[in-house]
Amino acid sequence: MILTVTLNTALDLTYGVPELVPHASHRVSEMSERPGGKGLNVARVLSALGHETVVTGFAGGSTGTVLRELLAGLPATDAPGTAPAPTTPAPIAPAPITDALVTVAGNTRRTIAVVDRATGDTTQLNEPGPLVTADEWTALLGRYEELLAGADAVALCGSLPPGIHVGAYAELVRAARAAGVPVLLDTSGEPLRRGIAARPDLIKPNADELAQLTGSREPMRATRDARRRGAHGVIASLGPDGMLAVTPDGIWQAAPPARVLGNPTGAGDSAVAGLLSGLVEGLSWPDRLRRAVALSTATVLSPTAGDFDRAAYEELLPRVGVEEHTPAAR
Amino acid sequence: MILTVTLNTALDLTYGVPELVPHASHRVSEMSERPGGKGLNVARVLSALGHETVVTGFAGGSTGTVLRELLAGLPATDAPGTAPAPTTPAPIAPAPITDALVTVAGNTRRTIAVVDRATGDTTQLNEPGPLVTADEWTALLGRYEELLAGADAVALCGSLPPGIHVGAYAELVRAARAAGVPVLLDTSGEPLRRGIAARPDLIKPNADELAQLTGSREPMRATRDARRRGAHGVIASLGPDGMLAVTPDGIWQAAPPARVLGNPTGAGDSAVAGLLSGLVEGLSWPDRLRRAVALSTATVLSPTAGDFDRAAYEELLPRVGVEEHTPAAR
Repeated sequence: MILTVTLNTALDLTYGVPELVPHASHRVSEMSERPGGKGLNVARVLSALGHETVVTGFAGGSTGTVLRELLAGLPATDAPGTAPAPTTPAPIAPAPITDALVTVAGNTRRTIAVVDRATGDTTQLNEPGPLVTADEWTALLGRYEELLAGADAVALCGSLPPGIHVGAYAELVRAARAAGVPVLLDTSGEPLRRGIAARPDLIKPNADELAQLTGSREPMRATRDARRRGAHGVIASLGPDGMLAVTPDGIWQAAPPARVLGNPTGAGDSAVAGLLSGLVEGLSWPDRLRRAVALSTATVLSPTAGDFDRAAYEELLPRVGVEEHTPAAR
Repeated sequence: MILTVTLNTALDLTYGVPELVPHASHRVSEMSERPGGKGLNVARVLSALGHETVVTGFAGGSTGTVLRELLAGLPATDAPGTAPAPTTPAPIAPAPITDALVTVAGNTRRTIAVVDRATGDTTQLNEPGPLVTADEWTALLGRYEELLAGADAVALCGSLPPGIHVGAYAELVRAARAAGVPVLLDTSGEPLRRGIAARPDLIKPNADELAQLTGSREPMRATRDARRRGAHGVIASLGPDGMLAVTPDGIWQAAPPARVLGNPTGAGDSAVAGLLSGLVEGLSWPDRLRRAVALSTATVLSPTAGDFDRAAYEELLPRVGVEEHTPAAR
């Protein structure tokens, strides 16, 4: 089982409007609602890859209830008919997602993605999360320790809700390492800086997060700097340029066969799912990176934000280029 | 008791953002949630004026549950300490609002007002309402007939949700007239056109609604035309220019003492509350118009969209100018 932690879950609403005009009134023509927050997105992709996942974090209030109802309906989008061709390496029958969220008194936040149908561009409105109390945080820690006992890997994902101390991820990283469970940290800002110092197995920053952490926009320099700060492995996601992995076993650069156009929402979460599933399956670094790049590219190509296009994924997988840097270049 | 009918109730969310930038991501800095839809707004103002109200219409799903919980907390904003000066004509102790909404299977819509704190401008996103079934409409008709028996006046307010036939308001107007209950219709487009033909006691269109109905932007011509279509009285709200009332008893023009700047959201609903409360209290037309204009102006002045500023209302009330048109001008 793979565990994902989402401290600031969200009820993600997507509104389609013909055109977003500031200061005007808009009739929403299409609307969808789904459980969100990075760790829930990672779990959905892991499930589609055939990995059992358990999700924890916080949920509360009426929006939390709706989120959990929608979560209980997952996995629902993968029809059995979409079974993979025999050449595809990963197991693909969708696996269950178990809700182990901790109930809080506050209201789970909503996020609203307003999609302008004229241009395809998205305007995002994110509510602040609920104020989490000290008792609720203690309950989460207890739940997390229990779940670690059965986990093959854990992903710690996203922002911190109000009330949670900035060193929270560092605490969760230390607990995972003490339990011997490989831990991937995917956050930003000060929680990332503190979390790295607790020596997670992997971090997966994007170029902006890396620059914020290290002060450098030069990928190799920034990625190595991030590693020196404590992360065992740093997988930098460089958008359309693919990924740069600086690990104890070597340095690799992976890139999709061609640039693609689409909605990058959720591409990073798909990459996390690719990396973690590959780790649990014992894949080599090049194969993990191939999967992560193919999944995130197939997410950009999907018409639904945050979902990946399975046919595109399977087509892309063998075509992702992976190059090892020679030891001299390290 | 005054009855208000809101067929397309809404959970109204207001999001404050430092500045709304299309295609960017925004952290919502302030957020409020309240029960909405025009008839609910009218009820809130009637309550503040000391009039017992009953609200009916449809509510359903998780958003409907939240709406009803918030409604159960009303009236909450009027502290007893805000009792009026003895010279104020209207009774002001807040009166109860009774929830007589009909539960539907669909989800009550959300509306989102994104307030740009840099300019004060508002961008509105309105979800479509739930699909209302024929059985749910029949249940509403039964509830409405029962409530009419105890009503001194009724307001029919706002848009129709999907599934409701365009002649729905005409049907509700006829039932009110058959029950001998004065009925005010506040809607737009085809539901207004059909509703007027059923001869409501009052309609309260704004300039745009009047122009859409009659093809004229000349207030006197358009208001008289609207009256010829079947409404006994037409109270045209002309924004900062006040109101023009064409009634069986005469024609009056009422205007605030000065133009004010602010958020006009809910000003029309406050005017409806002013007109209906004045009717029930047996006020003269000039006094009803004074109250309606003072309330809507005090709503524009309120820092909270849709609420009225009570001090401003009391200060404005004696200063609203009302002019009667001479019979020759009719």
